Amino acid sequence: LLADDQRDRIDVVLVSPRNPLNIGAAARAMANFGFTRLSVVDPYEPHWREAKSAIGAEDLLQNARRTQTLKDAVADCTLVLGTGTLAHRKPEQPVIPLPLLAPFIREKEKSARVALVFGPEKRGLTREDLALCHLLVEIPTHPRQPSMNLGQAVAVCLYQLSTRSTSITQGLGGPGPDSGTRDRAESPDPPATSRDLDLLVQVIEKTMAAVNYSASIMRNANHHDLHLIVRRLALTHRDVPRILGLFRRILWQFEHRAGSR
Amino acid sequence: LLADDQRDRIDVVLVSPRNPLNIGAAARAMANFGFTRLSVVDPYEPHWREAKSAIGAEDLLQNARRTQTLKDAVADCTLVLGTGTLAHRKPEQPVIPLPLLAPFIREKEKSARVALVFGPEKRGLTREDLALCHLLVEIPTHPRQPSMNLGQAVAVCLYQLSTRSTSITQGLGGPGPDSGTRDRAESPDPPATSRDLDLLVQVIEKTMAAVNYSASIMRNANHHDLHLIVRRLALTHRDVPRILGLFRRILWQFEHRAGSR
Repeated sequence: LLADDQRDRIDVVLVSPRNPLNIGAAARAMANFGFTRLSVVDPYEPHWREAKSAIGAEDLLQNARRTQTLKDAVADCTLVLGTGTLAHRKPEQPVIPLPLLAPFIREKEKSARVALVFGPEKRGLTREDLALCHLLVEIPTHPRQPSMNLGQAVAVCLYQLSTRSTSITQGLGGPGPDSGTRDRAESPDPPATSRDLDLLVQVIEKTMAAVNYSASIMRNANHHDLHLIVRRLALTHRDVPRILGLFRRILWQFEHRAGSR
Repeated sequence: LLADDQRDRIDVVLVSPRNPLNIGAAARAMANFGFTRLSVVDPYEPHWREAKSAIGAEDLLQNARRTQTLKDAVADCTLVLGTGTLAHRKPEQPVIPLPLLAPFIREKEKSARVALVFGPEKRGLTREDLALCHLLVEIPTHPRQPSMNLGQAVAVCLYQLSTRSTSITQGLGGPGPDSGTRDRAESPDPPATSRDLDLLVQVIEKTMAAVNYSASIMRNANHHDLHLIVRRLALTHRDVPRILGLFRRILWQFEHRAGSR
């Protein structure tokens, strides 16, 4: 059971939802389970804030944040969770089954800001969307019919997060941001935000290009992998300026030397 | 985690649903979580079987059973579970929180047939509907906005039933059909069906009327309580003819004596 103040640090993020009724249904489920922070990324229909399905969640929908990109929506978050089924793809991130998500979030530091990201109705989250996620949350649907309705998927996830689950203390038993050697409980240093990580990727890529690290034909693939990698590292807020500093130094050195040649 | 054969003994029953899109959404959630048996009681809209929202569940919707009354829909069931929130009423039945439902059903005998009953969109299950239920399943929604969308409520319940839950072996700690002294594990006698119990109520009421047990003004209240009581008794299949026999004997005696007076 997440306390109210823990629910307040969870953002529900809907990426490119097509049907406003689904946005309203997601808002209704949020109200049902006590969540308040909704972000809508690049919605298809301009009048989504008037969705009739947001029963009891009209204010929530009015106050929802609208962003143009997923990157903007999760910029302030320190843990970004993509949702979906694994029926048709091999995941590139660590996967956590939905029933284990609440104890996992509860163990995070109080300063953690969590985004729970849902893809559009037909296709779910793209590979590019997922590259912005630290973890994949798997909703355990039946292999014969894995694809859920958006509003129902939101309801199921928030139900699971808000409900009492018997304590699972043995941990996840798999790879994840916290499975490294660093013990977060001992560290007063909060995790890096998505904005930090995006900046880091940008500077690293600039460095890679400057040093001709990869053929231009490989750049898209590297870009994608780089997003995944920086999220797997469980960087803290304080790590980022250090690493940025290093790469900026490399860049400066390289440009300086190139100029002096 | 309910095995597939356990899911096959669970009927999803929708009482007087108004919006066919919600019926389709319920069917879709059933397909998502591997359930197949849908009953629709007295639907508002005649063309509900064509609901567009039943993505991946078109066959399930075509094969759904339609009945005129809830009583007919649950006639063959041995455990009838009403769903809802407890925000606006004091329950007359034992209540089980949704997170405990899967272990509870798993502990039932293999012969148990379970109905999971959902009320109509606006008002939920009526007091009369609930009188046909052995137990109430509480979906733990927020007190400020307890009322869920029908399709979302079905999704949340079936998710909880189909998902792994850590074992809860200490039992329910509250009253319920199995909390009496009879140990079901030792009994090869299956529980009574709803049809049995309805017949029993009918014969008992006839007896009550015949013996002028209650003023006619009290009959509706007694009818309601009687439904609740026979469901609380955890009668077995073999109990019913015995009790029926007794009441029929009383009736016969009374009519015989009345005639001979």
